[in-house]
Amino acid sequence: MSQPSYDVVAIGNAIVDILSQCDDAFIAQEGMAKGSMQLMFSPADADALYAKMGPGIEASGGSAANTVAGIAAMGGRCGFIGQVADDQLGDVFAHDIRSVGIQFDTAARTGEPTTARCLIFVTPDGQRTMNTFLGASQFLPEAALDRQLIADAAILYLEGYLWDPEEPRAAMRAAIEVARKGGRKVAFTLSDVFCISRHGDDFRKLIADGLIDILFANENELAALTRTDEFEMAVAQLSAQVPTLVVTRGEQGAVAIQNGVRAEVDAEPIAAVVDTTGAGDLFAAGFLHGQAQGRDLQASLKMGAVCAAEIISHFGARPQVDLKALLAGRLG
Amino acid sequence: MSQPSYDVVAIGNAIVDILSQCDDAFIAQEGMAKGSMQLMFSPADADALYAKMGPGIEASGGSAANTVAGIAAMGGRCGFIGQVADDQLGDVFAHDIRSVGIQFDTAARTGEPTTARCLIFVTPDGQRTMNTFLGASQFLPEAALDRQLIADAAILYLEGYLWDPEEPRAAMRAAIEVARKGGRKVAFTLSDVFCISRHGDDFRKLIADGLIDILFANENELAALTRTDEFEMAVAQLSAQVPTLVVTRGEQGAVAIQNGVRAEVDAEPIAAVVDTTGAGDLFAAGFLHGQAQGRDLQASLKMGAVCAAEIISHFGARPQVDLKALLAGRLG
Repeated sequence: MSQPSYDVVAIGNAIVDILSQCDDAFIAQEGMAKGSMQLMFSPADADALYAKMGPGIEASGGSAANTVAGIAAMGGRCGFIGQVADDQLGDVFAHDIRSVGIQFDTAARTGEPTTARCLIFVTPDGQRTMNTFLGASQFLPEAALDRQLIADAAILYLEGYLWDPEEPRAAMRAAIEVARKGGRKVAFTLSDVFCISRHGDDFRKLIADGLIDILFANENELAALTRTDEFEMAVAQLSAQVPTLVVTRGEQGAVAIQNGVRAEVDAEPIAAVVDTTGAGDLFAAGFLHGQAQGRDLQASLKMGAVCAAEIISHFGARPQVDLKALLAGRLG
Repeated sequence: MSQPSYDVVAIGNAIVDILSQCDDAFIAQEGMAKGSMQLMFSPADADALYAKMGPGIEASGGSAANTVAGIAAMGGRCGFIGQVADDQLGDVFAHDIRSVGIQFDTAARTGEPTTARCLIFVTPDGQRTMNTFLGASQFLPEAALDRQLIADAAILYLEGYLWDPEEPRAAMRAAIEVARKGGRKVAFTLSDVFCISRHGDDFRKLIADGLIDILFANENELAALTRTDEFEMAVAQLSAQVPTLVVTRGEQGAVAIQNGVRAEVDAEPIAAVVDTTGAGDLFAAGFLHGQAQGRDLQASLKMGAVCAAEIISHFGARPQVDLKALLAGRLG
């Protein structure tokens, strides 16, 4: 097993977010489940919802892509694999991820559908409710995997969201195999409760088969996956199955259990929650970067909390400040 | 002369901004004139500069478009005329301007070039330096003018930026004629010092011919147009030629002279200047909305100052708060 050239290589949906503010009445009226992600299956559905949306800003997104963007902003060496279309939003996504120094070589896909879009409605409490049109993203083929890149990374990071479409699901299974054969670690985020309701059995099997080394969940996802509302029982059950379990708890901070050792961190205080988009993604970024740097569990959690606090203090899911400098100030 | 159905109809470049942060060294290294706008004449130039740019966010822009978006956010009735291409960025522009209730019916143009992009580099002091690829915007034909819409608006608002390309220049001249025949007012912003260096003679002639009722300038543009650095002399000279002159002075506030009456306003205090993109555009929005509401010169200036302060306190040139509520709090 050679020394890895990359800290983290992620596979995820390659999405451009369209963010707009709305009130709670709009979320209710449209029958959205506030705080979660729902899929839009046709361009017509996406266009119809967009037509009802207020003025927006566009910013590169995608859960795992946000995570590697965060790690790169801290100085980590990252790669990303995800499918865009050969269109203007695809150019935006590719530009943004490459401009922070991330290796991104997945060839753009020609023809329909377009690059993935996520219509994100942000309510006055800062909560985000997401509606994703997966577009080209759902056609990431196994053939697009750069196996050398995956074998060269200390950690392969996968998002549960990408389990929905068939082709990327097969690609992720193949990627896990490449990583494990190379003696690399596999990190996985459960992404969303509805994602677990669709694919919980697959996720449970991946874990039971010992294929996941680092698992990220929030409280709701933890409950959905373990089918218990009792937090400590769920943590005990799951941490027995994965070497590292990280559970984020919003304002209550986060908990991690690594090979029987437990650490906890409070949420970082911030002036105002502007937009929670990317909170979990950036928590994962801070935590994984800490681990890649050889920091202990407690310090890694703290790094996750600092990164999450930065991202929810502004609109959009990619860092707007120098995360390296920010962390230097917080960690000493 | 019938009662107008619209407060302001604007003709301007239909642009999507791509905003990114950079340091002063980058601006110097690229030979940009900090704080101004330069044109990029080919898609290749635009792509080359974009490749050097950091991660960005995309937001609808365009000077006059920002102004009507601001007026609409205050409850004003507006229309916009500008040329987008039939592409994703064109869809974004059209969506954003329509979503705030602005009448926008200019048909998208098929084929090359793409919708206009403005690469905006924001330095740590909040100053913005703009590089515009006019794309489809420069092909706004006179035939695209909705003459009824123009005749139905109390004020026709034009941006100097649009004087660069030939077709829209001809369209603007035709629009001025329609507005004046209908007994409507014509407002004009000088836009940029380099714009004046290219088209100053045209602008001076428009003014001398009595075609401009309300003229917006910042200090540098005032000096360039009047060819004098002596502020009061320049103000006296220009205010003798236009019924209403509005000069913005950045941190020093603004001055207006209307039919011999003078008013001044201080800049609104804000915590931090994040991004000056759109400051002039939103000042014009506040001022014009005040005038449309029948407010006096002093109150109209104050409205301009409040709107400008909101826009420079965040990234991007379109309002992020309820401007109507904000103004209610500031004006009483």
